[in-house]
Amino acid sequence: MTIPQVRKEEQLNLESITWGDLTWVNIERPTERETEYLAQNYPFHTLDLDDYLSRIQRPKIDEYGAPKDYLFLVLHFPVFNIEARVTTSSQVSVFIGENYLITLHNGELKPLVKLFRECQIDEESRQEYFSQGSGYLLYRITDRLVDYCLPILNKIGDNIEDVEDNIFSDSARGTVRGISVLRRDIISFRRIIWPMRAVIGSLEPRVRRFTKMDMAVYFGDMVDHVDKIWDALDEYKEIIEGLNDTYDSLASNRTNEVMRILTIIATILLPITVVASIYGMNIPLPFQHSGYSLLYVFLIMLVVVGSMLYFFHRKHLI
Amino acid sequence: MTIPQVRKEEQLNLESITWGDLTWVNIERPTERETEYLAQNYPFHTLDLDDYLSRIQRPKIDEYGAPKDYLFLVLHFPVFNIEARVTTSSQVSVFIGENYLITLHNGELKPLVKLFRECQIDEESRQEYFSQGSGYLLYRITDRLVDYCLPILNKIGDNIEDVEDNIFSDSARGTVRGISVLRRDIISFRRIIWPMRAVIGSLEPRVRRFTKMDMAVYFGDMVDHVDKIWDALDEYKEIIEGLNDTYDSLASNRTNEVMRILTIIATILLPITVVASIYGMNIPLPFQHSGYSLLYVFLIMLVVVGSMLYFFHRKHLI
Amino acid sequence: MTIPQVRKEEQLNLESITWGDLTWVNIERPTERETEYLAQNYPFHTLDLDDYLSRIQRPKIDEYGAPKDYLFLVLHFPVFNIEARVTTSSQVSVFIGENYLITLHNGELKPLVKLFRECQIDEESRQEYFSQGSGYLLYRITDRLVDYCLPILNKIGDNIEDVEDNIFSDSARGTVRGISVLRRDIISFRRIIWPMRAVIGSLEPRVRRFTKMDMAVYFGDMVDHVDKIWDALDEYKEIIEGLNDTYDSLASNRTNEVMRILTIIATILLPITVVASIYGMNIPLPFQHSGYSLLYVFLIMLVVVGSMLYFFHRKHLI
Amino acid sequence: MTIPQVRKEEQLNLESITWGDLTWVNIERPTERETEYLAQNYPFHTLDLDDYLSRIQRPKIDEYGAPKDYLFLVLHFPVFNIEARVTTSSQVSVFIGENYLITLHNGELKPLVKLFRECQIDEESRQEYFSQGSGYLLYRITDRLVDYCLPILNKIGDNIEDVEDNIFSDSARGTVRGISVLRRDIISFRRIIWPMRAVIGSLEPRVRRFTKMDMAVYFGDMVDHVDKIWDALDEYKEIIEGLNDTYDSLASNRTNEVMRILTIIATILLPITVVASIYGMNIPLPFQHSGYSLLYVFLIMLVVVGSMLYFFHRKHLI
Amino acid sequence: MTIPQVRKEEQLNLESITWGDLTWVNIERPTERETEYLAQNYPFHTLDLDDYLSRIQRPKIDEYGAPKDYLFLVLHFPVFNIEARVTTSSQVSVFIGENYLITLHNGELKPLVKLFRECQIDEESRQEYFSQGSGYLLYRITDRLVDYCLPILNKIGDNIEDVEDNIFSDSARGTVRGISVLRRDIISFRRIIWPMRAVIGSLEPRVRRFTKMDMAVYFGDMVDHVDKIWDALDEYKEIIEGLNDTYDSLASNRTNEVMRILTIIATILLPITVVASIYGMNIPLPFQHSGYSLLYVFLIMLVVVGSMLYFFHRKHLI
Repeated sequence: MTIPQVRKEEQLNLESITWGDLTWVNIERPTERETEYLAQNYPFHTLDLDDYLSRIQRPKIDEYGAPKDYLFLVLHFPVFNIEARVTTSSQVSVFIGENYLITLHNGELKPLVKLFRECQIDEESRQEYFSQGSGYLLYRITDRLVDYCLPILNKIGDNIEDVEDNIFSDSARGTVRGISVLRRDIISFRRIIWPMRAVIGSLEPRVRRFTKMDMAVYFGDMVDHVDKIWDALDEYKEIIEGLNDTYDSLASNRTNEVMRILTIIATILLPITVVASIYGMNIPLPFQHSGYSLLYVFLIMLVVVGSMLYFFHRKHLI
Repeated sequence: MTIPQVRKEEQLNLESITWGDLTWVNIERPTERETEYLAQNYPFHTLDLDDYLSRIQRPKIDEYGAPKDYLFLVLHFPVFNIEARVTTSSQVSVFIGENYLITLHNGELKPLVKLFRECQIDEESRQEYFSQGSGYLLYRITDRLVDYCLPILNKIGDNIEDVEDNIFSDSARGTVRGISVLRRDIISFRRIIWPMRAVIGSLEPRVRRFTKMDMAVYFGDMVDHVDKIWDALDEYKEIIEGLNDTYDSLASNRTNEVMRILTIIATILLPITVVASIYGMNIPLPFQHSGYSLLYVFLIMLVVVGSMLYFFHRKHLI
Repeated sequence: MTIPQVRKEEQLNLESITWGDLTWVNIERPTERETEYLAQNYPFHTLDLDDYLSRIQRPKIDEYGAPKDYLFLVLHFPVFNIEARVTTSSQVSVFIGENYLITLHNGELKPLVKLFRECQIDEESRQEYFSQGSGYLLYRITDRLVDYCLPILNKIGDNIEDVEDNIFSDSARGTVRGISVLRRDIISFRRIIWPMRAVIGSLEPRVRRFTKMDMAVYFGDMVDHVDKIWDALDEYKEIIEGLNDTYDSLASNRTNEVMRILTIIATILLPITVVASIYGMNIPLPFQHSGYSLLYVFLIMLVVVGSMLYFFHRKHLI
Repeated sequence: MTIPQVRKEEQLNLESITWGDLTWVNIERPTERETEYLAQNYPFHTLDLDDYLSRIQRPKIDEYGAPKDYLFLVLHFPVFNIEARVTTSSQVSVFIGENYLITLHNGELKPLVKLFRECQIDEESRQEYFSQGSGYLLYRITDRLVDYCLPILNKIGDNIEDVEDNIFSDSARGTVRGISVLRRDIISFRRIIWPMRAVIGSLEPRVRRFTKMDMAVYFGDMVDHVDKIWDALDEYKEIIEGLNDTYDSLASNRTNEVMRILTIIATILLPITVVASIYGMNIPLPFQHSGYSLLYVFLIMLVVVGSMLYFFHRKHLI
Repeated sequence: MTIPQVRKEEQLNLESITWGDLTWVNIERPTERETEYLAQNYPFHTLDLDDYLSRIQRPKIDEYGAPKDYLFLVLHFPVFNIEARVTTSSQVSVFIGENYLITLHNGELKPLVKLFRECQIDEESRQEYFSQGSGYLLYRITDRLVDYCLPILNKIGDNIEDVEDNIFSDSARGTVRGISVLRRDIISFRRIIWPMRAVIGSLEPRVRRFTKMDMAVYFGDMVDHVDKIWDALDEYKEIIEGLNDTYDSLASNRTNEVMRILTIIATILLPITVVASIYGMNIPLPFQHSGYSLLYVFLIMLVVVGSMLYFFHRKHLI
């Protein structure tokens, strides 16, 4: 068994693990200093190194044949920002060659950081991940990151269920904001996964030469997972749009209800006021001095209100 | 005729039926114990066995050539949960080889359970289903499960018709909820059938080697059924979206109607109140002491109300 | 010229016409008795016969090569149900072989019934339709049924124009229902035509062997007609969705108008009532006993109403 | 130079121009008489002639190889009907052979009529259009008709800008109708252009044999124009849908504004009325006979109104 | 090193730079004079020159093989018009041959103008851009113009965030207009980028012959940038549609709130008015002359208001 070399370049922001003839270089928050280091020590194309630092990027695979013989991957994974309550994408750039694998990222992706630590500390993990070549190591990293999408996805699913539960209850104040935030999240998540499907789907044949075993089944399984995530997001998108429509229907329903009450109140109370006002006029009025005048007035009120209610009810208006 | 062996492993949660050289192993609610048993007795890939236990899955066919020579299928079918009034998906995993067929599921799919019981009890069914090889048996199981979708589909169709009948009647209280629940159901159902179409559609050429007869027509017929279900769901989706729009239009219609009544009431009663209030003022008023004062006042009221109604009516506002 | 044999099997619900070596068997409302008869006399696959009786079906062509050498077609055509005001689909199943053509349907499709009657009665029609082989006869039947879609389509077009005419007139009561019913109709119609396009489009090369002449142009013409129907339905769908949106905009417009009147009424009449009520209080009031008190009060009212109207008008609120 | 023969068949509704060995026959408003004439003098398929007279048609190219060797084209172009303010499609049928080109149309397409007149009158135009074969003549006609779409398209663009300008101004009465009519127009226009793209796009290779020069660039340019028109219509469609949404948002905004005024009026005036009514009661009231009673009452009114306004304002309701 | 010739044709509106055997001719705001000049000095097709001057155009590549051997490109880039607050497209036409590159544009595209100035002034830039052939120069120009889209894109992104921040705050007056303008902008931007993707994507293999180095990676990188822009626009489109829906939901929410206040006010104040009016009638009333009459009346009012509030509250209406 070879002795693993865990080396840390003090000046540069990079760490590396070597096991057998395979080295994994991990660079968190790379600056121009690190890309210069890579440019000097590896046969990488200038554009790929530029690509990392520029902010505008897209998941992709660039393949360089002999004599350079390496792959450049850009991968995006969703990271849920708890404070801003928003899903954003976090980028990992990967250079993979016969006997090295270089990852550049900004440290947000917990599972990647954890995996690297695991390999630094644990001899067994190192053997398990490194012994099948750089292609297998790439599979393990990517698979870990894909699985990391699931809790974020499930969180969205839970939030949707919360909205569904609340939407028919009366205390639906925060629902609009809930739907709006969820929709935004799903849109962002979909935009991250969409280009990833193509990249993950075309990874296997290109990585084949960097691994010692047949990995078709493994990569196929990972593609299934990504597709499943996509399907779920598609379903969530339709559900949240449906919930938005439902909310609007309920809101217009509520408007109608409140309007109807107002109208009923008006229909009952206004005629009474009218009759009372008339009998409040300072002019001679019929039955004014009769002992039963109040009774007569109440009878008039009853007749007016009753006939109005009957009329509107017959016209299906109240 | 061979004597069928109906064997039940006490310790493990699996039952099996053997007829001729073909064995059907049925595992309800598999745990790690059962997958270990499979791993020891069959040449299955570790990933396939892991796949069953992990919850995130997608309908698919994995094909393993010689020397393993088996197919791994994941199929999803809709199950209507009566209590929650929701359609959820239920998963069946199938391993199929030359002389065995293994089904793993959680027992929710009634027709699968019933079919297995039938084969256990009835010699004739056994002969009919098992005599044409494992591919034919797979066809019979899948076809039964596809047919099982129809009553669920028809239930949705009936519910849509109920909503359609109710939407124009006045008692449209529960309609929003009805539309919302139906839409949710249709979305879920579609998400179950969508990936199934690809799997069912590509099943025939892969299963061919496991059967003794030409099954193209049979599988083609099953694909027709799945496509028909998909078409129906597509139609339902469009209908329910149309009904939602119709409901909203009707609701805004009702708002308008109620508003118009309020306005008519206000237009008639407020002017009368105004005139009456004026004649209720404690100041000297014209005609106050005349014998016909009430008549004069009523005339004033009539003129004011009449001219307001006429004015608004001419402007097409009431 | 051969003598046509018009034969009617008393016991079975089938009629047949023979001219030359070609026989057209027409079965209205087939039961199991008729499918058994077909199973005994023709080399049809059991599934095709089962298919007819089961309700769930999809337009399709099943091709059986030698030695069976026949085609099985399922075709759907729209039928407008006048009572229910709904377009539903009606199914025709066709078996076509070298010298026979068998149609199974439930008698709803008038043009098919009429065509058969025509051939029974009229020697000339018989010669025209039968002399070019079973493929040509199939073309004549299908073409007749496709043309039969046009009046139904035109009826929808007329109804859309009615809705368009009514939508801007004030008496737009029935419009919502009109739009809803039309949309439903168009959805159903589209669902019938959609799978038909594929079937009709792939008919020609398969029917070629059953006819004596080159029919590419004829079938191409029929495909054009089906495509034209599809285009029209697509346009209708977009138009009706646009009309729905227009209706909703108009409804919210009307709400605004009615609201504005209410507000204007309130703005004018409420201040008057307030002033009158104040002067109706049983407490000492200024100018109460002056001879011009009424004039003063009216002046106060005028000022209050005027300034309110002016204020709201300047804020563009009324 | 050959002498052009401008001939007019008195009995038939057709005119023709011949230059060199190429003849252009133009038939406006063809009846059965003209189609019979064509059937007798040209080797056209009966279906093509029938097609012209039947109303239901779709843009298409039918190609007939040797010995008939002609193309049959159906083309649709938009015509703006100024009175009905609607874009409708106008059909041109074209038969094109080695040395003839026959156009059948109903005379609505001004540029076609004008082009024919131009060729009748002007020797130079004749030479320019006829000297390169019938394929080039077809290109000139089609290109002219495609360019004729642009003013109609621009008119729609102008109308959209009008709607955009009006939508935020207060006098947005006619906007709903404007949006509705524009949307209808765009839908119709799109439906005319959509099938035309396929026809125009596949024209060049089929027409090649009827022309003496390489026309790939010319037809490519025409395809660009049609695609540009399509793109513009697509953009217009999205814009008009966006405007519809904007209009609805503005309408609900206005409803809110008007509602708020009503509520403010009610909040201010109703409490005053209440207090005044109370002091109008014919029962002993506090401060009734005090000299400052009016002042007290006004103070009460002020307190009630003020506290209500404060309360609703703090709850962000007014 | 060759001496660059910076030449300016006084009469014509064109400038040119020559370095080695490569000349870049830049024409701002070309008129017919310039196109005539090009027609005389270069082997360009008449249609391409016409194309520039006609306004209706579409991004495209026209390829002319030997002996002409040049490419004609039409490219569109977004330009943000600050005054009109609208994104419009600006066109660049490019002719590229072995040793020349001609750009025609109207001077709106700042980066193109700046690049040309840079090459005029700075010897080093000239060498960098011109030494690899006309294909490389084209890449530099196009890449600069593509990058120029990013600030416009980011501006839209910032505006969307502003709308998102404002939408839930109460002062959402300008939001409708903001959403409407943004949506319009995004639609226009998308329409500009959409056809560009195809053009940029197919540029590399066609330009290959005009350059001395392998440029696949460079053009691939540019395609990535365009795709990224497209993805961002797609996401923006979905977000803005979501925000529009959210705004509408919030608006109907606000309507409901205001309606509820009105109803509460009416429910409390109208009954009091009614009771007060009744006690204001000039007829004998119960308790009228009692010392506690006011107390009794207040008790009646309290009971009426209280029971109404209780009734509506129990029915979940207020």
